Amino acid sequence: MVTDQPHHIVIVGAGFGGLEAARGLASAPVRVTMIDRRNHHLFQPLLYQVATASLATSEIAWPIRSLLSNHRNVTTLLGTVIGIDAQNKKVLLEDEEPISFDTLILATGARHAYFGRDEWEPYAPGLKTLEDATTIRRRILAAFEQAEWEKNEAERAAYLTFVVVGAGPTGVELAGTIAELARDTLRNDFRNFDTRSVRVVLIEAGPRILSGFTEDLSAYAERALTRLGVEIKLGHAVSQCGEDGVELGGQFLPAKTILWAAGVAASPAADWLNVRADRAGRILVLPDLTVPEHPDIFAVGDTAHVETADGKQVPGVAPAAKQEGRYVADVIKARLRGDYTPPRFAYKNAGNLATIGKRAAIVDFGWIKLKGRLAWWLWGVAHIFFLIGLRNRLAVALNWVWIHFSGHRSARLITQGRARKSAPNPRQSPAAPKAE
Amino acid sequence: MVTDQPHHIVIVGAGFGGLEAARGLASAPVRVTMIDRRNHHLFQPLLYQVATASLATSEIAWPIRSLLSNHRNVTTLLGTVIGIDAQNKKVLLEDEEPISFDTLILATGARHAYFGRDEWEPYAPGLKTLEDATTIRRRILAAFEQAEWEKNEAERAAYLTFVVVGAGPTGVELAGTIAELARDTLRNDFRNFDTRSVRVVLIEAGPRILSGFTEDLSAYAERALTRLGVEIKLGHAVSQCGEDGVELGGQFLPAKTILWAAGVAASPAADWLNVRADRAGRILVLPDLTVPEHPDIFAVGDTAHVETADGKQVPGVAPAAKQEGRYVADVIKARLRGDYTPPRFAYKNAGNLATIGKRAAIVDFGWIKLKGRLAWWLWGVAHIFFLIGLRNRLAVALNWVWIHFSGHRSARLITQGRARKSAPNPRQSPAAPKAE
Repeated sequence: MVTDQPHHIVIVGAGFGGLEAARGLASAPVRVTMIDRRNHHLFQPLLYQVATASLATSEIAWPIRSLLSNHRNVTTLLGTVIGIDAQNKKVLLEDEEPISFDTLILATGARHAYFGRDEWEPYAPGLKTLEDATTIRRRILAAFEQAEWEKNEAERAAYLTFVVVGAGPTGVELAGTIAELARDTLRNDFRNFDTRSVRVVLIEAGPRILSGFTEDLSAYAERALTRLGVEIKLGHAVSQCGEDGVELGGQFLPAKTILWAAGVAASPAADWLNVRADRAGRILVLPDLTVPEHPDIFAVGDTAHVETADGKQVPGVAPAAKQEGRYVADVIKARLRGDYTPPRFAYKNAGNLATIGKRAAIVDFGWIKLKGRLAWWLWGVAHIFFLIGLRNRLAVALNWVWIHFSGHRSARLITQGRARKSAPNPRQSPAAPKAE
Repeated sequence: MVTDQPHHIVIVGAGFGGLEAARGLASAPVRVTMIDRRNHHLFQPLLYQVATASLATSEIAWPIRSLLSNHRNVTTLLGTVIGIDAQNKKVLLEDEEPISFDTLILATGARHAYFGRDEWEPYAPGLKTLEDATTIRRRILAAFEQAEWEKNEAERAAYLTFVVVGAGPTGVELAGTIAELARDTLRNDFRNFDTRSVRVVLIEAGPRILSGFTEDLSAYAERALTRLGVEIKLGHAVSQCGEDGVELGGQFLPAKTILWAAGVAASPAADWLNVRADRAGRILVLPDLTVPEHPDIFAVGDTAHVETADGKQVPGVAPAAKQEGRYVADVIKARLRGDYTPPRFAYKNAGNLATIGKRAAIVDFGWIKLKGRLAWWLWGVAHIFFLIGLRNRLAVALNWVWIHFSGHRSARLITQGRARKSAPNPRQSPAAPKAE
């Protein structure tokens, strides 16, 4: 259909993939609408540092519209997508009129998954959003506070036992940092117990931690974690989760704080389109990242199950999402120019990194593997480099240097959303009819 | 009563007054218990900067127990005081057993007050806690987001009208900073309206703004605010507050965002003890800051109505609370030494400051009055000096320099407390019996 309106591209989700797509389309003769449920882009790789009180929320999150403000052809809207009308090429929204698109990019991301045991979520929060991070921070700090009151030894021990389920990078980072928080940062802050008595238990169903890395790197990480005082339980699946602890291998482990780092599931984008998805809910996209039978709809990042030419699955990491977003922008621009011969998406592995506390890390670039202090510094420099705003880079670097040398952590705040008491959200107020 | 236990002093509230009292008692041969509902001390004079997205929460708040960790005779407890049993010298707590005291210091602070119209609170949030600040930040930013969707001109104008009720220092600081946020920080971020069309209306029932200052300083502040684009309505009391606006002088002003800076009321400490209070609920203390007929109970800061020898009331500002906290610690130490001849509390006026946006301020030291840019720099230096942690001073200074030169504000995050969905607070979980 040819009109005099410029081609309209709607992007749903301003994570790494969506944001990169928007930037790739910024100079093109198109109109772009970015829709996200939240007003901020989140640097998820450092989210565990907010959860463990090392960084402030604003150090790893930026207003989406401010990141895109220089791109005059991009409009940013805060809204919740609830479905797609593929036939009429419309995005359906909560509380707002549908928005029409010529091309759609789904970059809706993932949530943590409980393998069919969603009833565990209240007891074992996962870590995907800023709110998740402040929830976990509140839980961890509140457990220490409660232990200071507690006179019953067994109860106190339960408050001072922290269980992390799942030993991927997030689980390992959480467990290592909680151990340091207890033994280092909080050491002098309590009068009624010794924070060194804290137990941090990392539970993993598989035979080793960090299974995405080679065996020798994960063996190194295991030693480093053990040195920090983390207890590692391999080959154990959690069979029950509750307010007072977890059950594994028929045994009950009393613990008031359980954190979930065991699995992710894609957003419901596959359901919106009624197309095939993998076990984790990711859409099985074609080699050019379009959704089968929907040539004008692309999926990137954790929304898509992407296979490279050699049949390998592209991992669900930030660099992959960014490469996919950039690739989709290029495909769309080539199509509009008329010279549409897209090469299939090729993934360039930027390396695989994980940290264990504030002194050790493992890095696997494929051609070289690193571990220990040097890897940690490399990890730190790489993350600061990829942080978006110049000021944030400085602030995060300053924070880390401070924590490194002083052991203090600045973001130890227990805050509670007053959402329960406050006025109805203005977004939900009765208002005049709205059009797209 | 003489026992071999050291004298036990309970302090309720770790604001400026309570914290200073704890520090004053740190070296004495006494046992101190600090109880606060929150885990953090808050630098309230900069709270409006969190509300207007200039500073992050962790830049103006610090864990209380970390501030007191070097004082080995001080135990910090996170708990909510619900009353005092003065006869048996016990502090009554929510969810915990009562705590006995030999001496009690009430430093429970103030909340904003609605002059008997508490039903306005959901529509016009006030600014006293970190949660208040993030609530206001969310409201302000969400109003802009909603305006970007809105097609109806009148509705959009209502989303872009911000009403601040009360023109004391907090109201003036809020109004000035919102005006700058709209005209400067957000200028390029929206596509469907011009942020310069934003109206900021400051409503004051009295005849001038900043009535705590001299007439010429408040006239200057009025001109500076007007230059920033703030509309000032003097001699107007708000007669109605609702979801869609306020009523004043029989006229309805449509506005989706209303902020309350019009009054404060003390905590219910006077009710706990059933003693006389002033109109704002502050206990009418004796010249040595003890509560009448309760020689072992002191009140400081916003909990106390203090008059100096010349009959003037001590203002409810941070330096006054700190002086009172320090004074009470000295009185208690003198009593325990046995040489109890307390001089009456004398207030040393440290000066009165207020800012208007990021370029102007007024300062009144009594012996000298300043206004304009020089006053602003003095205000900035004074506030950075009084911030508690060295790192925070650096971070805040860095933020301000950044905002000053770039116009960007880093803390523009809309976050929502997930408290509604999360697990029951561990503090409220069924637990074994607890003793003091």
